[in-house]
Order: sequence, then structure tokens, then C-alpha cells
Amino acid sequence: MPVITVATSAVLIIGNEVLSGRTKDENLAYLAARLADLGLPVVEARVIPDVEDVIVRHVNDLRTQVTYLFTTGGIGPTHDDITTASVAKAFGVPVVRDPEAERRLRAHYGEGLVNEARLKMADVPLGAILVDNPVSTAPGFRIGNVFVLAGVPMIARAMFDALAPGLSGGPPVLSSTVSCRIPEGEFAGDLTLVQQRHNMVSIGSYPYFSAGKVGVSLVVRGTDPGAVDAATTDVLAMVRRLGGEPLKANS
Amino acid sequence: MPVITVATSAVLIIGNEVLSGRTKDENLAYLAARLADLGLPVVEARVIPDVEDVIVRHVNDLRTQVTYLFTTGGIGPTHDDITTASVAKAFGVPVVRDPEAERRLRAHYGEGLVNEARLKMADVPLGAILVDNPVSTAPGFRIGNVFVLAGVPMIARAMFDALAPGLSGGPPVLSSTVSCRIPEGEFAGDLTLVQQRHNMVSIGSYPYFSAGKVGVSLVVRGTDPGAVDAATTDVLAMVRRLGGEPLKANS
Repeated sequence: MPVITVATSAVLIIGNEVLSGRTKDENLAYLAARLADLGLPVVEARVIPDVEDVIVRHVNDLRTQVTYLFTTGGIGPTHDDITTASVAKAFGVPVVRDPEAERRLRAHYGEGLVNEARLKMADVPLGAILVDNPVSTAPGFRIGNVFVLAGVPMIARAMFDALAPGLSGGPPVLSSTVSCRIPEGEFAGDLTLVQQRHNMVSIGSYPYFSAGKVGVSLVVRGTDPGAVDAATTDVLAMVRRLGGEPLKANS
Repeated sequence: MPVITVATSAVLIIGNEVLSGRTKDENLAYLAARLADLGLPVVEARVIPDVEDVIVRHVNDLRTQVTYLFTTGGIGPTHDDITTASVAKAFGVPVVRDPEAERRLRAHYGEGLVNEARLKMADVPLGAILVDNPVSTAPGFRIGNVFVLAGVPMIARAMFDALAPGLSGGPPVLSSTVSCRIPEGEFAGDLTLVQQRHNMVSIGSYPYFSAGKVGVSLVVRGTDPGAVDAATTDVLAMVRRLGGEPLKANS
């Protein structure tokens, strides 16, 4: 499918808890929706374990393929938080204690509660720039085109909000959704023709079950507003022609 | 972290709707939990778009690294359902119409409703073995060590349940969880020592917010029941020693 984009991003979810099925990742959907709006559509996401050489390999593989890479998870104070050290290794730089991050953590915890485990959260790869954490102080960071965020969704979102104004993307990816109750198999042939007539957009067909009945969302995506509108009009006409009651939702 | 496993799996989530943030993937958590129980822990998951050469590349990259690869999404009747053709290409075989799958689809829809789009769901790579779909008939399939499943969670689960008895894994990955209200930074040093004393298990520390307070789940994972028990006992003792009220949950 086309949707030509000049800028892209990828997400690397680091954490045994997601790979074990214990925790459902909440960060990809949030980051992906925000990044599409910013003209930085996510073209790939990976979920990997807390293992240093695995993290190093995937950071280096993905960061060369996209405009920005976002990692989530593994920057807390415990022994299994090895993302910072692994990202430093991926860039071939040492880990250093950031004085500003240390100042923030000492102010947040107070001298009574600060300890070596908590100060570990002030460590960053040499050359990194801090990403603010308005929720729990311990910062994320940026090095090169890689942003390293927390795994806890509330914190990951706050960090993304803090860094988003500094991103430069392409045109926003627009989308428009037409939902109906026609089974996919009854419009698939017609929808192929609609897609062929509108090669500047990508049309997806996503079936769902609700209230015991089958429904489907037809989603038109693209960066050209006129092309998205024209394709959506064509999809709506197709649904009406096949006797469906279309429901249109812009997003 | 150790947890030596003799058999592993990977999950490849195929779908623009997940990468755009429109749809939250529900399949990884389910497959990962089931596969861990079957002694086939998921060591990596990827989310990729509905683009043929991208699917081919990732299928071939992942299938050589694990015992089994599971894909989800892209096997319906519409133009954006290109997983079957892409997997066939990855294996270097043609797509053929499976007579048994065609028989099932014709019986399910009846001659009045069967059409070319629906019969496309009877197409499989040459040499593939069908995976039953008790929900909506259109089958998944297995080729080599790759299982190709639907994206709709209800169907993906039913397909997995159908194929699971045929999998051969290693020892199940056991886990045991101790939750408490102690902030991570206050036990991180002690927990490192617990992990060092129990090198046959992997201990993860996963903070969460609930009812306005910080909590943390300490999860012990491993394949040796005695090692998991011993480490869990040690974690419980650590939490009590630090004045926390541990809550133990086996899973």
C-alpha cells in the first residue's frame, strides 16, 4: 500500500513482562496514534527481553531504519533495568551520571531517601539529553535519534508529551473510517476496485464482532486530505450500493 | 537473566491497524501466556505492516531463530489480506487452493454466498497443513515451523486452541508473584542480592499505580519448580524484613 511518508518511527518495547504475557503493552497504541498525527508513522514495533546483547542489536538495527526510535521500559532502579547501559553500549559510549538528573532526584527524594539504586536513574549514555518526567522525576533521555522512555504507561505518556514539541515529522497521516454491517466477503471485490482507483491512500478492512453480529471498519489513510476525502466518498457510495448503512467517523 | 529454555517461539503481528494505533493488539498477551505454559516462551514479537516484502523478510528472519513462529492477521478475503501470499513467497512455494478448505467454505456459506473473495480464504502455500477455525470456518495453516493465524482475537484464540496439542515444547515456564507497596528504590539493592543467590530464575520488578499509591509486583520465573520456590521464599523474606506486607500470587 502506498502512503508515502518522508519521516517514520519505530517502537522498541523492552520487557520480559510483556513477552511473558503478564503485562499487556499499552504504550504502542498511544505512541503510534500520536506519531501518526505528528507525521512520523510507526513502521515497525518489536517486543524484546531484558537482555543486554539483544537490546544492543535491536537498537542498532532499528535506529538506522527510521527517523526516530522510541524505546519503552527498563530505566528504573532495579537489577533488571538495563536499558540505559544497553543503549550506551549500542552507541559505543560510556554511562555517566547526569548532574541535572542527580539534582532533580536528590530534590525529589530528599537526602534521607536518596540511595545508590535511585541515583542509578540519573545515569545516561554520554552525550544524552534529558527527557522530563513530570510524574515521578526520574528522566528519560535522547541520544542520537533514539528516545528512551519509561515502561509505566502514565510516565511514558508524560515523557512523550514533554518531548513531542521537539520532533520534526512529515505531513500528518490522516484517517477516515466507514463502518458497516456487511460481511467482508460480500464487498471484497468492490473494495479492491476502490483501492485501485485511489492509489494515494491505503484502505484497510478490519472486521469485528459486536452484539453478536459481524461488523467491519473500512479505514482510509493517507497524507493528502483531498485524496482521503475522495476515497472515503467512494467507500461510502460502495457501502450504500451494497445495501449497507454506513457510519462515518473521522479521526 | 538466565531461564534456560530448550524451545522458544516468536510472534509476528501483521497489520497496519496495530501500527497506526487504531487497534490495540490482544493476541500477544494470550499467545505468550499459553506458550510459556507449553514450554515455548516467546522470545521476541514484532508488529509489521501489510506489505509483502516486509512480511517475507520478517518471516524468514524469525522462523530460523525459534522453534515455532506464530503470525496473526491478514488472512481474510479483502485486498489488504496478503499474509498467505507473503508466507508462500517466504518459503519459495506457490499458493494453491486447498480442496478441504474449499469444501468447508462452500459448506459454510452455501452456494449462493460463496464467491471468489471468500474462496481466497481456501488458498494456502503449497505443502501447508490446515489449522481449524471453529469460529468462522476459514482456516489458518502451518507451513514448516510457522503457524499462520487470524487477527481477530476470538478467532486467533480458537485456532491456537486447535493447534496447541500438536506443539512440542520444553519444560513449562513457571512464575510466582509477590506484590507489595514498598517503592522500588527502597529494595533494589536487596533484590539484586536475591537475584544473585538464585541464578536459575529470573526476577522482574514491575511497578504500578493503583488507588493513588505506588505498588510493585516482583515476579520470579523459571523452569525448575524448586528454584522458583526457593527464590520466592527469599523475596517474601526480603519484603517482610523491609517492613512491607507481601501478597503472594502463584500463576
